[in-house]
Amino acid sequence: MKHGGDLTQAMAEFGGAADDWLDLSTGINPWPWPIRKLPDSAWQRLPSRADEQALLAAARGAYRVPDNAGIVAANGTQALIQLLPRLAADGAVAIVGPTYNEHSAAWSGAGHSIAAIGDLAELPAHVTHAVIVNPNNPDGRVVNPDRLAEVATVLQRRGGWLVIDEAFADVEAGISAVASCGKLPVVILRSFGKFYGLAGIRLGFAITTPDLANRIRTVLGPWSVSGPALHVGTRALGDVHWVLPTRVRLAAQAIKLDGVLMDAGFEIVGGTTLYRLARHRDASALHRKLAQQHIWCRSFDWAGDLLRCGLPPDAEALERLAQALAK
Amino acid sequence: MKHGGDLTQAMAEFGGAADDWLDLSTGINPWPWPIRKLPDSAWQRLPSRADEQALLAAARGAYRVPDNAGIVAANGTQALIQLLPRLAADGAVAIVGPTYNEHSAAWSGAGHSIAAIGDLAELPAHVTHAVIVNPNNPDGRVVNPDRLAEVATVLQRRGGWLVIDEAFADVEAGISAVASCGKLPVVILRSFGKFYGLAGIRLGFAITTPDLANRIRTVLGPWSVSGPALHVGTRALGDVHWVLPTRVRLAAQAIKLDGVLMDAGFEIVGGTTLYRLARHRDASALHRKLAQQHIWCRSFDWAGDLLRCGLPPDAEALERLAQALAK
Repeated sequence: MKHGGDLTQAMAEFGGAADDWLDLSTGINPWPWPIRKLPDSAWQRLPSRADEQALLAAARGAYRVPDNAGIVAANGTQALIQLLPRLAADGAVAIVGPTYNEHSAAWSGAGHSIAAIGDLAELPAHVTHAVIVNPNNPDGRVVNPDRLAEVATVLQRRGGWLVIDEAFADVEAGISAVASCGKLPVVILRSFGKFYGLAGIRLGFAITTPDLANRIRTVLGPWSVSGPALHVGTRALGDVHWVLPTRVRLAAQAIKLDGVLMDAGFEIVGGTTLYRLARHRDASALHRKLAQQHIWCRSFDWAGDLLRCGLPPDAEALERLAQALAK
Repeated sequence: MKHGGDLTQAMAEFGGAADDWLDLSTGINPWPWPIRKLPDSAWQRLPSRADEQALLAAARGAYRVPDNAGIVAANGTQALIQLLPRLAADGAVAIVGPTYNEHSAAWSGAGHSIAAIGDLAELPAHVTHAVIVNPNNPDGRVVNPDRLAEVATVLQRRGGWLVIDEAFADVEAGISAVASCGKLPVVILRSFGKFYGLAGIRLGFAITTPDLANRIRTVLGPWSVSGPALHVGTRALGDVHWVLPTRVRLAAQAIKLDGVLMDAGFEIVGGTTLYRLARHRDASALHRKLAQQHIWCRSFDWAGDLLRCGLPPDAEALERLAQALAK
């Protein structure tokens, strides 16, 4: 199972139609920012420069991007993950893991050698670049911004970059290292779809030095973000009053989910409020048992005792999960 | 004016709000394929592999892709135009022009030297690759598929590619060179947004050898097409009965547009039924006169006597254009 959020494999192996499944395999907010009807122009016209500027202004506000940093939008953070290794200086990259596996695939595909490390403290002397997912996926570990700035300073002397994937940083204030952008060779990736619950829309950002932001913009070319994503993203990122109650609601549901998992004998070992990482000696068997009841969680080939579980969207789904685990 | 379809510059120079303008600066069908309400999952979930397979199957049908060719979808043809020069073998590229200027920008940005040629018959001996927009933008010139296959055969011996941008090929049967894909090193680009009138959605395809299609897919990475684009694209491309009446309607409106332009002293020198290319010794002044009346056409820095004009969406808009030209 390479990614969460795709029932294609689940349905092929365990049957059922998409609507039969309770998909807990992602870290996507189950209560999306509410989309109202889009203007026809969002579908029909080429996105304009003015539309793109409005989106970037909203993102600068939402992510508190310093004035001396650049920001560029792409059709999902994944597009930026694919691109960065091709723009980076030659040299090895340290990737703090285990983590989201597309970073390693992209750097390796672009010809960089990979040093898999468990902690930034183990940064090898020979690497030019480093990548950290912060909070980490799946274990939710957080490295504080000061420590990240120290590492970026070390990599700056080597002519390299520190890539910080903040896909899940929206869930809590104080996680983001965005304040260090502009001064240091840091590339921060922000994902719109997870916290705003709109992963289908494909919208992500790189926040970095103005020079690198311009290079990325040039290589992406015009119209890299769709009209619907520009329209919805601008409004959602500008809706500052939506953020705090959403964080609270996610945190409350995560607590309830922890309760259900612990009742079933799991130990909660990490996560963010968008997903929980839980340990059980029989995690693999329980993953299968849930799948047979059309509940899809995330398992990991590198740890048979771990299960990652996204937020059930309501009390009924929580109860369904509890019943399925008890069966 | 680098691209059509963006009123940002027009409004900055000539005033007015977007709704005041009649935008004739693009070649986008003004009568889009009708979008019905999208399922919430298209916005909220990550696009699945099954969704992508359904889109590619619909595109294979609509574009009559031979079984031995590969096809890959991207968030707009522009994303493929940006990418291809970075995947191509080293070597110069001949670009048949004047044409859509992003091809030259992308090949040049990736380090290839450019040979600008006026006709494929002038293909220089030193070039490895060639790019042709067919039908050409803005003049509508069409090179027939057999001739293109001959050129591809020549380039095959040089280890190069023939890129055929068929952005406007939907308007007429018999233009597409898609039948030669799979046998020859041809890359055909198809744009969804123009003929289907949904340019904001960002959806394009590369049809080529299975090997190159797989390379492109790997470099684009997962989820490169949004959920809304997958949903709408699959249904629109599968709606085969929509194609013929749309071609007829475009052709009828193009004839009416020609009439208006000729009445104003223009000579029609080319185009497709999605846009007309017209010549007038005072074209630059007329472009400005129309802009002052908030009608935006396309002018070209390489030819002061040419104007490209997209289809007015209805009789009222046609009449507005006629009045503005007569003023």
